Amino acid sequence: MFNFDFHNPTQILFGKGRIADLAKVVPANARVLILSGGGSIKHNGVLDEVHAALAGRSFQEFSGIEPNPSYENLMQAVELVRREKLDFLLAVGGGSVIDGAKFIAAAVNFEGDPWAILEKRGANITSALPFGAILTLPATGSEMNNGSVVTRKSLKAKMAFSSRHCFPQFSILDPTKTFTLPTRQIGNGVVDAYAHVMEQYMTYPADAPIQDRFAEGILLTLIEEGPKALATPDDYAVRANIMWCATLALNGLIGAGVPQDWATHMVGHELTALYNLDHAQTLAIVLPSMLRIRKEGKRAKLLQYAARVWNLTTGDEDARIDAAIEKTQAFFEQMGVKTRLGDYGVTADNIETVLGQLESHKMTMLGERRDVTLAVSRQVLELSL
Amino acid sequence: MFNFDFHNPTQILFGKGRIADLAKVVPANARVLILSGGGSIKHNGVLDEVHAALAGRSFQEFSGIEPNPSYENLMQAVELVRREKLDFLLAVGGGSVIDGAKFIAAAVNFEGDPWAILEKRGANITSALPFGAILTLPATGSEMNNGSVVTRKSLKAKMAFSSRHCFPQFSILDPTKTFTLPTRQIGNGVVDAYAHVMEQYMTYPADAPIQDRFAEGILLTLIEEGPKALATPDDYAVRANIMWCATLALNGLIGAGVPQDWATHMVGHELTALYNLDHAQTLAIVLPSMLRIRKEGKRAKLLQYAARVWNLTTGDEDARIDAAIEKTQAFFEQMGVKTRLGDYGVTADNIETVLGQLESHKMTMLGERRDVTLAVSRQVLELSL
Repeated sequence: MFNFDFHNPTQILFGKGRIADLAKVVPANARVLILSGGGSIKHNGVLDEVHAALAGRSFQEFSGIEPNPSYENLMQAVELVRREKLDFLLAVGGGSVIDGAKFIAAAVNFEGDPWAILEKRGANITSALPFGAILTLPATGSEMNNGSVVTRKSLKAKMAFSSRHCFPQFSILDPTKTFTLPTRQIGNGVVDAYAHVMEQYMTYPADAPIQDRFAEGILLTLIEEGPKALATPDDYAVRANIMWCATLALNGLIGAGVPQDWATHMVGHELTALYNLDHAQTLAIVLPSMLRIRKEGKRAKLLQYAARVWNLTTGDEDARIDAAIEKTQAFFEQMGVKTRLGDYGVTADNIETVLGQLESHKMTMLGERRDVTLAVSRQVLELSL
Repeated sequence: MFNFDFHNPTQILFGKGRIADLAKVVPANARVLILSGGGSIKHNGVLDEVHAALAGRSFQEFSGIEPNPSYENLMQAVELVRREKLDFLLAVGGGSVIDGAKFIAAAVNFEGDPWAILEKRGANITSALPFGAILTLPATGSEMNNGSVVTRKSLKAKMAFSSRHCFPQFSILDPTKTFTLPTRQIGNGVVDAYAHVMEQYMTYPADAPIQDRFAEGILLTLIEEGPKALATPDDYAVRANIMWCATLALNGLIGAGVPQDWATHMVGHELTALYNLDHAQTLAIVLPSMLRIRKEGKRAKLLQYAARVWNLTTGDEDARIDAAIEKTQAFFEQMGVKTRLGDYGVTADNIETVLGQLESHKMTMLGERRDVTLAVSRQVLELSL
């Protein structure tokens, strides 16, 4: 096990009816800005519950944060917070709204051009407005971590940052609020959580059996519960399990003390920025090819994964590995997420453009061994056509 | 899954050489009281490293906190803190020293007689001194939770309390500091962590597959790594895994959203208070009998435990359950912890006294269904002779 720091101060309020507890965790005298996305919370009752819980409190609203939150749009919210002297953010939505809240929180009091936050990946953040979240879409884990991804549309640049100042103070997770999600968002969410686990697990053995077993536990649970979530959208237990798994997939725990990969995410970010694919779609495309191309470096963990997650324990090693990757890809398809670039209209002609963006973002030595060069990324993309 | 709150703000600094980072996490102008136990940290170099890390800082020392920290002794430390106007506690030792720090932290500014903290189980704590810990003995999980157990010797009362004010601000976990632990303490620590998991896992199914898998992951890892820790005391990876497992066993995570038992601990506490058995010895005695006597109520989870932890998947259900409990008991014995009351000189004549203490401490409706009456505890104790 590697040396590590683990510190996650976010308070989780989990379960049915927990939005009613909002007044206990938002400071009484806060001047709140409620952040939200495309408007679904106005139709599914979530916003009404928020208003009821904050009755008598001071709050304003900023809606329209995009699925991949844009720097340009978030800066409008920063201006609003500054102008109105607001001092607490409440993100109501999925990972994009929470990621947006993190950027706004860090940018409001940032000295200089807030674009530098993204350029420096958050290392220059010295404070942030306090904020909390009400999660309506289980997927990214943003509700219990300090990371955020923001896209600058004008540059087609999707950039990640993190800071110890950017943990939500609290997050409310009510699984009933996910009952009305479109199938596509549930499928995407399960694939996203699955890929988060794989980025922290599918590397090389590091004498960390408990981290491995926690990771495998999340994967097994997503494989069991994901299809049920599509089949019976109002099964509370299923939605609760997926919601808590997605949080645990990226709250720092399973990645503590072990090598991490993240090459799939970095290549995926370029695909979203260039061609507007959903984040999870890019992961479903890239991850299987990434595992195939990098099979030798990941051999020991791929065999462990084949055995413990897919119960593939007999026969030729390479056949077991290949079957485990096949099953991974089939699971993504089962969740309704297509796994080929061609499924989304991206062709061989586009690969050079993707590689150019990776190079311009200095993504030329990716992965747990920093050996995913542009040449490797090219192989991965070609295999994903 | 039940509704739950999860909030654990303790910062973990894990790995070789991390005591050197102490100055980064202890406030620069703090007036520190270093708390310790029987003196081992003076001989194994830990105290020297602490002194080096705090060079130039203001600190005093209070040693001699007992394996089951006594109210009487801890109140001496409370007086010292008050007299010297100290404002930060640093617990250096195992769970007992950290438990002691929690009580001292809560008692220093407590209005009225601090005994009330224990009588009310911490519900009346409104603030606590800040404190951190350097863990030298993996076992109790106190380094990353807000619970504490204190014994009032004069009353032979071992009492637990908890408070949201009583999380360590940080805990430093350096596995190399466990290399010189006596065999008995390693054995006790592994049994303690195992029992902590069982108290949160071995109840009834609650639609919480991820909590189950995390719990099973810790159990499997303790079973694998425990015997290695006895055989090769200076194997870093083994000690690191045990240390992190013991922390994860009781940091709130695996118990979030599921029923919990704790009857074994409550009966065990009386045995320690009356007959001075090590905490883990009491758990090794009581847990197997508790599972045998309460087999029907725990049947579904016992079968799951038999299959997933002990790979017992064929044959008659009762035989599988019995074998799983046998293997559990044999594992405790393998870790060097005897599992019969008679091994410690406690006899049938003592059972009435234990039951009397349980009654006087209102421990007459224990367990996840509150159905562990004194009559059930009597059966458990008789089966443990």
